[in-house]
Amino acid sequence: MPDQTETRTIEWIGGVDGFVRLIDQTRLPGELVFRECRTVEEVWEAIRSLRVRGAPAIGIAAAMGALLGLHQHVAEGPVALGERLREASARLRTSRPTAVNLFWALARVERSLKQATESGCSGDKLVSRLLDEAREIGEEDRRVCLAIGDSGAHLVGEGCGVLTHCNAGALATADYGTALAVLYRAAENGRRFKVYADETRPLLQGARLTAWELQRRGIDVTLICDNMAAQVMKEGRVQLVIVGADRIAANGDTANKIGTYGVAVLARAHGIPFYVAAPASTFDLSLADGSAIPIEQRDPREVTHGFGKATAPEGVSVYNPAFDVTPATLIEALITEVGVIRPVNEEMIRGMIGLRDQTEQ
Amino acid sequence: MPDQTETRTIEWIGGVDGFVRLIDQTRLPGELVFRECRTVEEVWEAIRSLRVRGAPAIGIAAAMGALLGLHQHVAEGPVALGERLREASARLRTSRPTAVNLFWALARVERSLKQATESGCSGDKLVSRLLDEAREIGEEDRRVCLAIGDSGAHLVGEGCGVLTHCNAGALATADYGTALAVLYRAAENGRRFKVYADETRPLLQGARLTAWELQRRGIDVTLICDNMAAQVMKEGRVQLVIVGADRIAANGDTANKIGTYGVAVLARAHGIPFYVAAPASTFDLSLADGSAIPIEQRDPREVTHGFGKATAPEGVSVYNPAFDVTPATLIEALITEVGVIRPVNEEMIRGMIGLRDQTEQ
Repeated sequence: MPDQTETRTIEWIGGVDGFVRLIDQTRLPGELVFRECRTVEEVWEAIRSLRVRGAPAIGIAAAMGALLGLHQHVAEGPVALGERLREASARLRTSRPTAVNLFWALARVERSLKQATESGCSGDKLVSRLLDEAREIGEEDRRVCLAIGDSGAHLVGEGCGVLTHCNAGALATADYGTALAVLYRAAENGRRFKVYADETRPLLQGARLTAWELQRRGIDVTLICDNMAAQVMKEGRVQLVIVGADRIAANGDTANKIGTYGVAVLARAHGIPFYVAAPASTFDLSLADGSAIPIEQRDPREVTHGFGKATAPEGVSVYNPAFDVTPATLIEALITEVGVIRPVNEEMIRGMIGLRDQTEQ
Repeated sequence: MPDQTETRTIEWIGGVDGFVRLIDQTRLPGELVFRECRTVEEVWEAIRSLRVRGAPAIGIAAAMGALLGLHQHVAEGPVALGERLREASARLRTSRPTAVNLFWALARVERSLKQATESGCSGDKLVSRLLDEAREIGEEDRRVCLAIGDSGAHLVGEGCGVLTHCNAGALATADYGTALAVLYRAAENGRRFKVYADETRPLLQGARLTAWELQRRGIDVTLICDNMAAQVMKEGRVQLVIVGADRIAANGDTANKIGTYGVAVLARAHGIPFYVAAPASTFDLSLADGSAIPIEQRDPREVTHGFGKATAPEGVSVYNPAFDVTPATLIEALITEVGVIRPVNEEMIRGMIGLRDQTEQ
């Protein structure tokens, strides 16, 4: 495994007057370029434009992004500071409406401000404390991803084929990833296997990011177009499917990148187990099921002009949902840092996630 | 409907010393450019590079292509002419191995040569007779496409949503198309409906060609990425799926553009009827089932460099089958010029197609 410090997905550089540095994922796989964000607006744009993407990474970016420029206002006192933070949070919440980690991470920074203020903390020290909290969200995510990997690694059998969709890898998190953490840990345990990566239209996160990071870490990866998944399954090349998640309802219904639901239906039709790997922070137990998860609709030009030139006739109608919801009934198990949840139902989820959720909040 | 003479997919221009003119479909939807082919090799390249594609159109192109330059050899006598034609045919057969119409059309021209020679025809007159035969293949295809459309038009209910994959339209045939003929005829009968066109990676025939020709003919079309088909079905937007075919085995197993099989599985899972529209010439009754249909594997760069720039990391493995086979059990009916074949099984197919096939050969 290469030195990960070189390719840290997202990082706060410097002290309270520092900035957010993140890999500009829109430039991959061609170039590994870092982008420095010094304002809330720049982070909003980075999230919106998918320079940083993946539910956990978005959470970390938002938590750090909300603190940008905050130190300039310490003289105004904790109340004004709180207002500024809430303004920044409100703005950042509009960047990607589907990712629950975004809301969760921002709420956590706001809670931290409240606690720090109540304990008499103020000035640069207060900002520094919030910064520690944002950094801790990143560090926790790294530990959580490792734990997800360890929970699920045994599911990857020797010599098997694994299909994944979009990018739920190191680039989507602080490190390791969620779905890909399972593969990285299996590989670290000496397991040999083959990965089929759906390219994942329209934005090709599978081709650009998953293939890139798996190749970089020495995992045997084969790229396919999304519409080849069924054929690859039919040919017996795939023994399990693992994907990440953007939001999971209390009953296990899972919102993830568009195309995930189709892959789940195909996996079921071929008798292949379909797994979702995600941290507890991705669960939204306030939603009874997936029907209430908002589905972000994105710019038609992602479909018609995705590659720098028009690939469809001028003026054609386009439907471009960014996510879909896979019903719990199609999911064999949820792989989390607190263990594998199987069967996937509300009782099991509340039993393993609900408790932790209450403790934390 | 606009004047179709303007946009004839493929045409022989001139007399025995003429040439083949075809729409260069690789330039669509940006530009409507015609390509003139004056040698067998140029037609081979046009088929291989998908400047002309779609099983019926390939058949017409090959039949015409095999005659290019033939008139220069009339002085050598009918035997030499026959050899030249067989050479040209052999070369053209290697251009796309999956499309049975290619073989069928070339065999038909060769048979015509034999008959003409036996009846004492020679010289330019012989070439002219072959040319009539090749043109007749095109004219027949036009009539056949219309008949397919008329067979299936009643299946398109008022106000329904139709999903199609790849391009089985006017651009894939002499005119009208197969799957799209059904839609064009339904529209001509006053039916209003909405079409969802899968963009169809890697070469985007759905985005570039189907969206283009439906839009041109005033049909309400919405472009989606292939991986959105499941979601569109789940949302109740689709009441039927119609696709074309490259080859159909005696039991109804159908080879068509990669991704078709996946769409059929998804349609079944959502209780949506899945139809295949194809001329009798697409049936290959010598194959008991789809397992013997050769699946063309194409250049990995279609997947990694499909849009003029690299969209995947250098050196990544790619799996790029051009076709898949949909089992007959997933097909609600086959829509042909001789009527709708339902249920799809060998007895029904031999009953409706087999008889015709024997009469003709």
